[in-house]
Amino acid sequence: MNNAVLLISCSDAKGITASVTDFVFKNNGNIVHADQHIDARTNTFFMRIEWSLEGFALQRDQIAESMRPIADQFDMSWELHFTQRKERVAVFVSKHLHCLHDLLYRHKAGHFSCEIPLVISNHRDAEAMVKGHKIKFACIPKDLSNKSKQEEKELDVLKKEKIDVIVLARYHQIFSDDFVKHYPQRMINIHHSFLPSFAGKNPYAQAYEKGVKIIGATSHYVTKDLDQGPIIEQDIVRVSHRDNVQDLVRKGEDLEKIVLSRAVRWHLDKRILVYNRKTVVFD
Amino acid sequence: MNNAVLLISCSDAKGITASVTDFVFKNNGNIVHADQHIDARTNTFFMRIEWSLEGFALQRDQIAESMRPIADQFDMSWELHFTQRKERVAVFVSKHLHCLHDLLYRHKAGHFSCEIPLVISNHRDAEAMVKGHKIKFACIPKDLSNKSKQEEKELDVLKKEKIDVIVLARYHQIFSDDFVKHYPQRMINIHHSFLPSFAGKNPYAQAYEKGVKIIGATSHYVTKDLDQGPIIEQDIVRVSHRDNVQDLVRKGEDLEKIVLSRAVRWHLDKRILVYNRKTVVFD
Amino acid sequence: MNNAVLLISCSDAKGITASVTDFVFKNNGNIVHADQHIDARTNTFFMRIEWSLEGFALQRDQIAESMRPIADQFDMSWELHFTQRKERVAVFVSKHLHCLHDLLYRHKAGHFSCEIPLVISNHRDAEAMVKGHKIKFACIPKDLSNKSKQEEKELDVLKKEKIDVIVLARYHQIFSDDFVKHYPQRMINIHHSFLPSFAGKNPYAQAYEKGVKIIGATSHYVTKDLDQGPIIEQDIVRVSHRDNVQDLVRKGEDLEKIVLSRAVRWHLDKRILVYNRKTVVFD
Amino acid sequence: MNNAVLLISCSDAKGITASVTDFVFKNNGNIVHADQHIDARTNTFFMRIEWSLEGFALQRDQIAESMRPIADQFDMSWELHFTQRKERVAVFVSKHLHCLHDLLYRHKAGHFSCEIPLVISNHRDAEAMVKGHKIKFACIPKDLSNKSKQEEKELDVLKKEKIDVIVLARYHQIFSDDFVKHYPQRMINIHHSFLPSFAGKNPYAQAYEKGVKIIGATSHYVTKDLDQGPIIEQDIVRVSHRDNVQDLVRKGEDLEKIVLSRAVRWHLDKRILVYNRKTVVFD
Repeated sequence: MNNAVLLISCSDAKGITASVTDFVFKNNGNIVHADQHIDARTNTFFMRIEWSLEGFALQRDQIAESMRPIADQFDMSWELHFTQRKERVAVFVSKHLHCLHDLLYRHKAGHFSCEIPLVISNHRDAEAMVKGHKIKFACIPKDLSNKSKQEEKELDVLKKEKIDVIVLARYHQIFSDDFVKHYPQRMINIHHSFLPSFAGKNPYAQAYEKGVKIIGATSHYVTKDLDQGPIIEQDIVRVSHRDNVQDLVRKGEDLEKIVLSRAVRWHLDKRILVYNRKTVVFD
Repeated sequence: MNNAVLLISCSDAKGITASVTDFVFKNNGNIVHADQHIDARTNTFFMRIEWSLEGFALQRDQIAESMRPIADQFDMSWELHFTQRKERVAVFVSKHLHCLHDLLYRHKAGHFSCEIPLVISNHRDAEAMVKGHKIKFACIPKDLSNKSKQEEKELDVLKKEKIDVIVLARYHQIFSDDFVKHYPQRMINIHHSFLPSFAGKNPYAQAYEKGVKIIGATSHYVTKDLDQGPIIEQDIVRVSHRDNVQDLVRKGEDLEKIVLSRAVRWHLDKRILVYNRKTVVFD
Repeated sequence: MNNAVLLISCSDAKGITASVTDFVFKNNGNIVHADQHIDARTNTFFMRIEWSLEGFALQRDQIAESMRPIADQFDMSWELHFTQRKERVAVFVSKHLHCLHDLLYRHKAGHFSCEIPLVISNHRDAEAMVKGHKIKFACIPKDLSNKSKQEEKELDVLKKEKIDVIVLARYHQIFSDDFVKHYPQRMINIHHSFLPSFAGKNPYAQAYEKGVKIIGATSHYVTKDLDQGPIIEQDIVRVSHRDNVQDLVRKGEDLEKIVLSRAVRWHLDKRILVYNRKTVVFD
Repeated sequence: MNNAVLLISCSDAKGITASVTDFVFKNNGNIVHADQHIDARTNTFFMRIEWSLEGFALQRDQIAESMRPIADQFDMSWELHFTQRKERVAVFVSKHLHCLHDLLYRHKAGHFSCEIPLVISNHRDAEAMVKGHKIKFACIPKDLSNKSKQEEKELDVLKKEKIDVIVLARYHQIFSDDFVKHYPQRMINIHHSFLPSFAGKNPYAQAYEKGVKIIGATSHYVTKDLDQGPIIEQDIVRVSHRDNVQDLVRKGEDLEKIVLSRAVRWHLDKRILVYNRKTVVFD
C-alpha cells in the first residue's frame, strides 16, 4: 500500500469534510477510508481520511504545504502520515516476557506495519529471545538511586535507533515526567487490570482479594500520571471462585497480549486520535 | 432532531465523497455523521451521511431532485430519509411474548424513533398486553390450508395502517414469497440461534443435542429463503453441560431481546445498507 | 421440585464430603446436585448439596437435628433450605424502572422461585406498574432529615409482609447500618458500573469522562460500606467514542437487568456462599 | 501435586457419591476437588473427584483394585489418573504455525502438565521452531495416494515415543477411521469456526461470504465424522463489514490459540468426560 493518512481535530464547523475531501479529489486521489466523529459536548470534529497516492497529483513533500490553507482556515490540529514509511518501535520489558514474545511473533507474521530494531530491559531475562530475533538488546538496570542517569542512557539509545514509538510490554519501572515528554502519545503501556480498577501494583492480587467475577486488561498512552493516560483498548475474561491468583495471572496474560497488540496495531495504522484525555479509535 | 440521512451504494470512483459532502456544504448543511466503507473485493462504495436541516438551503421535497445529478453521475443506489418522519412499525408475534414485551417497553422508554400502531398474531396470547399499550391487535390465525387467504388479510391491515416496517418478534409462521416481496429489506426477524447454525425449527433443542458451549441469536432481514436473509446483528452467551434445554431457552431469550432491539434501532436510524446478501451497519 | 439444599462452610478436613453424602444416602436421599470448593489460601471448605425429599427417611423438621452432630464435628457454618418454601421478596426502586419491570416480567415467566408481595419506593413513578401486577406498593419518601424515621416505616412493612429478601432495583437511597443489619446477606443491589470502578454517584458519567472502552454492571450484597459488599455477578458491554452518556445509560440498562436477575436467581436457588467479603457461586 | 483423579459415569442411583467419597475417606485421603453432574434426560451420573495421595492408605497400584467393587456395584465407566504421571503429547501441524508456537510457549511457561516430545507435520515449515525447542520433528508428507502408508509411519513414531495424546494444531489432513481408532477421545482438534457453522474447508472465507457478525473457534475430540466430534470448548470475537477475509483470519487466530490451549489444559487435567457425543467439562 502506498497511501496517505490525515488525522484531523478541530472545532466543528460547516464545510470541513467537503473541503478535505475536495482537496483529495482535485488532486486525483482515491479515498480508501474516511470516517469522522463529532463530540457534541465539546463541539469537536475528528476525522481520519486515507487515500491512495497512486496517480496523486502532489508529491509527498508537497502535500502538507498544499493542505495547510485548509488546516489554517478551520484551525485544525492535524497529522499527515504515509503508509510506506515504517515507524521504528522500541519495546521495553522487565521479567514477564509473554507480551514481548507475542509482539515479536505478530511482527514476524506481518500484523504490524513497523520495524522493531530495539528492546530495552532492566533485566537480562529477555536477552536470548530478543537476540534470537536479531534485534538489538539494551540492558539498562534501574533503581531509585540511578533512575535519572539510566533514563538518559535509554534516551541516548532510543535516539541513536531513531525510535518513533515506545511499547511498554510489562515494563515495571515508572518513568520520570521528563522522559515521558519525549514521547507524547507515542508511549503505549499495557496495564494488567480493567482500569480504573486496580491501578498500581499487583492488580491480579487486588482483583482476587476483591472477588471480582471478571478481570481485564487495559492499553493506554503513558502520561505523567501513572496508569491515568488515555485508554486505547480494553478487554475482559470471566473468572470464578475456583480461580486463584495464579489462574488470574494465566488468564490475564492472554488478555494482555491481545489488548496490547490491538493498541499497537491501531497506533501504527494511525487510527487513534487523543483528545481530552480520551481516545477516538477509528477501527 | 431535524436531520436528513442519505444512504448510498455504487461502484467506487474518485470524487464520490467530495461530490456528496460538497452538495451538503453548498446548501449550508452541517454534517453530524459521515461514514463510508469500500468493499475491495467488489469495488463497491457505501456511504451514510447525516446532516442538520436547520438553516439548510433546500426544502425537504427539493433535496432529492437537487441530489439526482450527482446520483446519476456515479450510478448510485440511494435512499433519502428524514429523521422527523417516524416510520410505522407492525410487530408479528406468536406465543412467545418476551420480545414483544421488550420492544414495547423500549418504545415507551424512547429507544426507538418510530410509531407502533399494530401487532398481528396467529394466536390470542398477546392480546391483553397489546391492548394495554393502546395498540391495535389483529388476530389472524393461519394453517397450511388458509395461508394465502390469511396473508391477504394481513396485507390489508398493514396497508390500512400504512406500515413501513415489519418486525417478527418470534412469529412462527413462514411467509410466502409473495408476501415477502411487499416488504423488501423492511422485514426484520429474530432467529433464536447463531445462524447459520441451527436454522429451522427448535434451535435450542438442536444446540442442546450438539453440545455447543455457546449459544446465540441472530437478527436478519427476511428473504424468500428461510433463515438465509442478510444478517444484521448477532450475540452470544456461554452455556455448559449444566444447562438443560429450558436453561438454554431462558438464557437465549435475553439474547433475542437485545439482538432484535439493536437491529430494529439501527434499521430505524437508517444505519443499515444491504448488498450481496450481507449488511453494512454504520453503528 | 421437593428438594433440600444444604450450604456448608468450615475449615477443611478429611471426611467432610463423605460424612455429608453418607448422611443423605443413609436416609435414602438421592443427590441431584453436589459441588464443593476448597479455598487453599484460607484452608476453607465450601459445599452445596441438594437432594430429593421424595422417599427421604426424615421429615423436614427432623433434618436439621439429625444433621447437627456432623455439623458440630466439623464446626460448620451451615444453612438448610427447602425448595418448596418460596421466599418472600421485596423490591425497592426509585425512578429508573427498567430493572423492576424486568424482575416482574421474569417472575411472571417463572424464572424465580419466590413470591414478590411488596415494592417500596421513595417516589410514585412505579406505582401504576406495581399495582398492575397486583403487588402492594408502599411509597415512603426519604430525605436526610427523616431517614431514620422512614426506615422504621420500611422495616414495619417488611416485617408485616414477612419479607426474606430485599432487592434494590436501582433504589437511590443509602441505608443506615442499622437497617442493613436486619438483612445480612439478604439485600441484593445492582450497581451500574463495573465495580470497583466508578463506585458512588453517576457511574455512567464517570465512565464517559474516563473514556473506558467497556462498561459494566455489578450485583452485590449490601453491607454497611457503600458499594463494597461481596460481588455476586458482573457483566460488561463494549462502548466506543461514538457513545455519549445517554448511549452508555441505554446499553448499561440491558446489563443491569441481566446481572441483577442472575444474582436474584442464584440467591433464591441457594447457590451463593459468602466468605471473606467474597462469594462462592455454585452455578 | 501428588493427587489421584477419578472420572466416573454411570446410571444415576442412590449412594454413588457416598460410596466414592467414603472410599477416599476411609483410606485417609483428603479430597481437593469434587464435582458431579446429573443429566436428567438420560438419568446419567458424572463425577470428578481428586484427592491427595499424601498419607493415603493405598499404594497407587492398589487403588484401582480396591475401587473395583464400588465400580462394579454401580456399573461405572471410570478412569483413574495420577497427577504425577505426565502424559506424552504429540502435536500435528501443517503450515499455519501460530497454534503450535502458542502451545510450545505455554508448555515452557508451565501451563500444561505434560511432556511434548514430538511434532509431526506434512510440511517442513515448523521444523526450525520445533528443533529450537529440542523436540523431535517428523516430516511425513501425505497425499491421497499414500495416506494409508504414511499413517502407518505416523503410528510407528507415535508408538515409539509412547504418545498418549494427539493435538491437531491446524493439521490440514483428514485421518482415516483406522487411525482415529488408535486414539479414542485422545485426539484434540482446533477448528477455525464456530461449529456446527462452517464445517469443512476455508471456514473464514465461508464466514465472510455469509456476512456473520461474530466468528468463532471450536476445539473438539476427533471422531470418524469430520468436524463432528464432541465439542470441548468454543469462543468468539466480533467482526464487522470492515473486516476482510484476512482480518477474519488474524482475529480468528487469537481465538484458535486460546480455545485450543484451554481444551488441551482441561484434557491434561482430566476435567473432561465424554458421553453421548457431548462433553462434561468440570472446569
